[in-house]
Amino acid sequence: MPIARPTGRIPEAAWTSGIRELTEPWKGALGCLGVAVFFAMTIGIISWQALEQPPEEWMLRGQASGMLWDRRRGALLLRALPMGRPLVSITVGSVPASEPPPPRDRCWQDGTEFCYAWEEEAELRISLQPTPAPGTECYSVRWNPLRPDVVLKDCFSMVNVSWYGGASLCAQRWPLNSAESPEQPFVSGDFSKNPTGYGPVLERYFLGSTGVTVTVAPDVSLVLSLESHWHFCLGGAGGPLHYILCISPNITTAHRHVGTQLAGQTRALPDTTLLWSPIWQYDGPVGSAAKIKRGLRSLARRLKRHRMQEGVLALGEHGTAALATMDHVPVERRKRHGAPHAWDPAMIFPLRLSITLSPYASIAAPLFLHLLRDGETGYWLSLQPRYGGCSIPLLTTWKGQLCARLNITNEAALSWYLSRARGLRHKLGATYVIFEGAEGNAFLEQAVSPPAELAGDQYAEMLAAALVKLGNATVISVGARSSHLPLFVQMSPLHSDWSHAGLKGLIPSALHYSLLGYNFFIPDTVGGSLAGDTPGDPELYVRWLQIVTFLPVMAFGTPPWLCCDSWVLNLTRQCIQRHRDFVVPVIIKYSKEWLSSGYPIFRPAWWLSPTDPTAFTVEDEFLIGDEVGNVETISLKGNLGKYRASCSCPLLHALFKYKAQIEGAQN
Amino acid sequence: MPIARPTGRIPEAAWTSGIRELTEPWKGALGCLGVAVFFAMTIGIISWQALEQPPEEWMLRGQASGMLWDRRRGALLLRALPMGRPLVSITVGSVPASEPPPPRDRCWQDGTEFCYAWEEEAELRISLQPTPAPGTECYSVRWNPLRPDVVLKDCFSMVNVSWYGGASLCAQRWPLNSAESPEQPFVSGDFSKNPTGYGPVLERYFLGSTGVTVTVAPDVSLVLSLESHWHFCLGGAGGPLHYILCISPNITTAHRHVGTQLAGQTRALPDTTLLWSPIWQYDGPVGSAAKIKRGLRSLARRLKRHRMQEGVLALGEHGTAALATMDHVPVERRKRHGAPHAWDPAMIFPLRLSITLSPYASIAAPLFLHLLRDGETGYWLSLQPRYGGCSIPLLTTWKGQLCARLNITNEAALSWYLSRARGLRHKLGATYVIFEGAEGNAFLEQAVSPPAELAGDQYAEMLAAALVKLGNATVISVGARSSHLPLFVQMSPLHSDWSHAGLKGLIPSALHYSLLGYNFFIPDTVGGSLAGDTPGDPELYVRWLQIVTFLPVMAFGTPPWLCCDSWVLNLTRQCIQRHRDFVVPVIIKYSKEWLSSGYPIFRPAWWLSPTDPTAFTVEDEFLIGDEVGNVETISLKGNLGKYRASCSCPLLHALFKYKAQIEGAQN
Repeated sequence: MPIARPTGRIPEAAWTSGIRELTEPWKGALGCLGVAVFFAMTIGIISWQALEQPPEEWMLRGQASGMLWDRRRGALLLRALPMGRPLVSITVGSVPASEPPPPRDRCWQDGTEFCYAWEEEAELRISLQPTPAPGTECYSVRWNPLRPDVVLKDCFSMVNVSWYGGASLCAQRWPLNSAESPEQPFVSGDFSKNPTGYGPVLERYFLGSTGVTVTVAPDVSLVLSLESHWHFCLGGAGGPLHYILCISPNITTAHRHVGTQLAGQTRALPDTTLLWSPIWQYDGPVGSAAKIKRGLRSLARRLKRHRMQEGVLALGEHGTAALATMDHVPVERRKRHGAPHAWDPAMIFPLRLSITLSPYASIAAPLFLHLLRDGETGYWLSLQPRYGGCSIPLLTTWKGQLCARLNITNEAALSWYLSRARGLRHKLGATYVIFEGAEGNAFLEQAVSPPAELAGDQYAEMLAAALVKLGNATVISVGARSSHLPLFVQMSPLHSDWSHAGLKGLIPSALHYSLLGYNFFIPDTVGGSLAGDTPGDPELYVRWLQIVTFLPVMAFGTPPWLCCDSWVLNLTRQCIQRHRDFVVPVIIKYSKEWLSSGYPIFRPAWWLSPTDPTAFTVEDEFLIGDEVGNVETISLKGNLGKYRASCSCPLLHALFKYKAQIEGAQN
Repeated sequence: MPIARPTGRIPEAAWTSGIRELTEPWKGALGCLGVAVFFAMTIGIISWQALEQPPEEWMLRGQASGMLWDRRRGALLLRALPMGRPLVSITVGSVPASEPPPPRDRCWQDGTEFCYAWEEEAELRISLQPTPAPGTECYSVRWNPLRPDVVLKDCFSMVNVSWYGGASLCAQRWPLNSAESPEQPFVSGDFSKNPTGYGPVLERYFLGSTGVTVTVAPDVSLVLSLESHWHFCLGGAGGPLHYILCISPNITTAHRHVGTQLAGQTRALPDTTLLWSPIWQYDGPVGSAAKIKRGLRSLARRLKRHRMQEGVLALGEHGTAALATMDHVPVERRKRHGAPHAWDPAMIFPLRLSITLSPYASIAAPLFLHLLRDGETGYWLSLQPRYGGCSIPLLTTWKGQLCARLNITNEAALSWYLSRARGLRHKLGATYVIFEGAEGNAFLEQAVSPPAELAGDQYAEMLAAALVKLGNATVISVGARSSHLPLFVQMSPLHSDWSHAGLKGLIPSALHYSLLGYNFFIPDTVGGSLAGDTPGDPELYVRWLQIVTFLPVMAFGTPPWLCCDSWVLNLTRQCIQRHRDFVVPVIIKYSKEWLSSGYPIFRPAWWLSPTDPTAFTVEDEFLIGDEVGNVETISLKGNLGKYRASCSCPLLHALFKYKAQIEGAQN
């Protein structure tokens, strides 16, 4: 049946509503408004959902902590469970910020691994590691660049986290939050060559005050930059970046569980008799062997006169070389000049002698030219000619001279060097041998890519391992993966002033060295050995002396009778006595603990109060074991003889009686 | 009006056809077959069209030639128009073969440029260049890598094309189709350091027998490999690759239009009086200056006795250094040893003296140590320490000794060196100064990246430019973008045998040097100066002598009276006379043509018959200008005194009368 089409006239219903629209306009407006509100609400809800989706997304969840992705900042975020306390935030600089966050796990579904690849950029793989100790949880973070020009860079936030460890700096800070350093290879170095670089004692280990540790794998070609109070960044220098993040309940537990395991289990003690012996640097005339001999005897006589005859006379590298050639002077010339026949260590008895060597040979030195004539170019670090032929020594500078550096990877060269050191020690009757110049990578310093066996700090590591063959009375200038070896470490020189490059850096350095396992360090000579703002300041000398009394070895450059009044000489004598009677026994006691557990001997304020935020930034106090601290000596400049009675840290009571004694001696 | 639907019964037509299908089954089968054939044909045509689409596609079309893309091999193909004769095929190794061929021009539509980018790989831009001369057409080919790990490599086919130019080789070939060389930087080198490397005379210029030239831009960090009888490859060493391809009607025109323009227009002649003077290398006792003096006088007396007193006595580097120190010998020692006071060039008159210098200083030499004490480390090529400080000399080897190399970019060092050379020349009364060791890049040889100002062959180029200040009586051991300078070029040493590294390489080398613009070369000493398979072979000596007679300068190491019988001595005298009377005037004549037009003086067989395929592989003949050739002397080993009457090359008639004279002299 066809439907009747209404044409020509308006139906009743439509007509009625038309009339109503005309007569009740507010109702139409209300309808419009309703529709508009409905639309606005819909849009609002959608955009609220889009904007207000949780800014953090789960990546990997452990027992006590979880790793999240912070999509606003493009950062990995580690939070403690179950409360969600933030432990560390790692800004990822290697992948584009515009990229969406990792959507979800692409790896096996057992929940212990997370992977994601930013296409053509980098690949991230995070996995839960076996627990090293109960209460500590570790994540392996592994970045792989997918293009050769991608430079991986992970930046660890310093906001609300104090960081320790890493590399020593010219102006050492504790914590290193206030330190600043441009991006450069994480390789030990010499501050005299590169003052803004990294120093001789470093480990690929960073400790955060929230109980986090960062340990970088040894095969990573690492670069590090420090941006004060903001973050520090680890970079992969063109290759992969791989580190282990561990979380412990607090900072002390973290270091006990992770930091003490850095160098393995077999630790050994150096010759601890050096702790009882102050070191007197020979600073007298250099030139001929006879001059040096006279100088050494005169210094020994002086020390005897001032009743400080027990100790070590330290002869520098030039002096050692000069004294070593003594026997080579032809007999007739010796007679003509009236010089006695050879050096005899009995001349300075009961003082003992230490000599100084370095792995460098000046290209103008007869030694170098002699070896060269024998065709032994392989004895020195060399560049390999591209088209074959004998290797060509890579020159470098050492103490202002053009030198070649011992090729530590050449076994013949190494055994020649060790037997030469042994021979010199025997010939000069030296008890201790100091090896300078072990730090640094001669290739990287000249922007030449090193051979694989000498990448990073392998040189320092290999030299330290080799020097152990000379016994345990050896001092080396570097510490890199060698904290377990029975060697003393010479602290890098400090400036003769009150700055962090001088006196203020002494305790931070001691804490840094000890934290990384280098407890048997020899601090710089009292008063500093580099020119500073206040050379010859008696107050600086006294403060320095007081701190050094509580450190492993007391070393003197300028003797007290040259620097200051006679009361300082008396104080020096008393401090040496106090060091022997009180400090060394405590060090010896805790060195046993170090041998068994690896705990540092010189401990920061937070060691006993790991949850007290004020303890994290104390850089002028330390404990020896759990007993002794050195309080507020540095902040008292200009106030000689007046000590504050209060102590900001309630943990360090033990010191006070010793401090009082020093004060008594002074006044 | 409703349409009547037919329901309930089958229409007539359908019924009839049904009956037919039942009664005539072959027709149905035929229909099926027809349909199948139709389908098969369709599929066949489609696949034929797909497979048989033209394998070459137009990229860019010039007036006389066109560039095509060969989609089967992934190669650029240059064809002559209108006949389509293939000129050169360039296999492109840097982009994936699986990639489809460039679809079409993405650049401006004016038809002079073609561009294509292989995504994330490389970008190609080919453009027609302004015509350098009528009949010659040039294309600029420019590859840009789009990722840092893409290594660009274009391989020029040697199939049916003979190639010339490029770099000199230890065993020089003409053409270089049969030469073989691994991929290495296109930098001048020393065969004693790298026998498989590139020699001291090279230009970024390759000439093909189809009339094609390849000129590589100077800013390209170029690597070259030669794979004999297959192709040679130009590579960009990580950076862009840019070269100019030019097409001329034939090879001679190509070289006239392109090859002669390599070094610009302002050419200058060296001191041509050397052409008349045979060079006698002093090979006598070395050691003290007095010994050398006696040796030089004795050689001069001998030459006088044999009536060959006109020429040059060449003193090597060690001899020069020894003679230079003569004045420094203390007077009393001189008197004791009875040596006269100083060197006087009048002692060897009318012979003249040439001395030898190099830009190397032994690190054991007093000169080096003295400059070092003055703090002049900048006088030597150095590595810059990454963290500042004074530069550290980069050592290298020179004649078996560890040496530093003059820093040519240091103006003070260069002027010191030039004034030292001037002083020595004056002091020893030398007419000529030979500079050895100018070739090579000391940085690249040790796989160290050179500073920008010393990339590639800049060292050789700068040294050559600087030596012009000493006048035009200077010999240098290298040729790299310096063919326009008034310098003689010392040819690299050859082996004393009949191989291509010895006698057989002499004419190919002469042709190579001259093609690249180095016409004033000094061939290696008669008989070869390096140990070979047949030392002291009189026949080799005579053949060598005969070839060298027709080359610019005759140089002798072993004098003929030491090598062979007296008839060889007579022959030597006659050859020297012939060289002076006949060859030198021709060389002088064509050197004027070289000055004005840049045409080579020593020309290959194809110069006058550029379309004769047999001429391209003739490596034992050459022309001086358009006149003289040296015919078949090399292939006659073991046949002393008997020359073939026939000549394979019909162009070289002029030689015969001179050859006949030599034969006459011999018999």
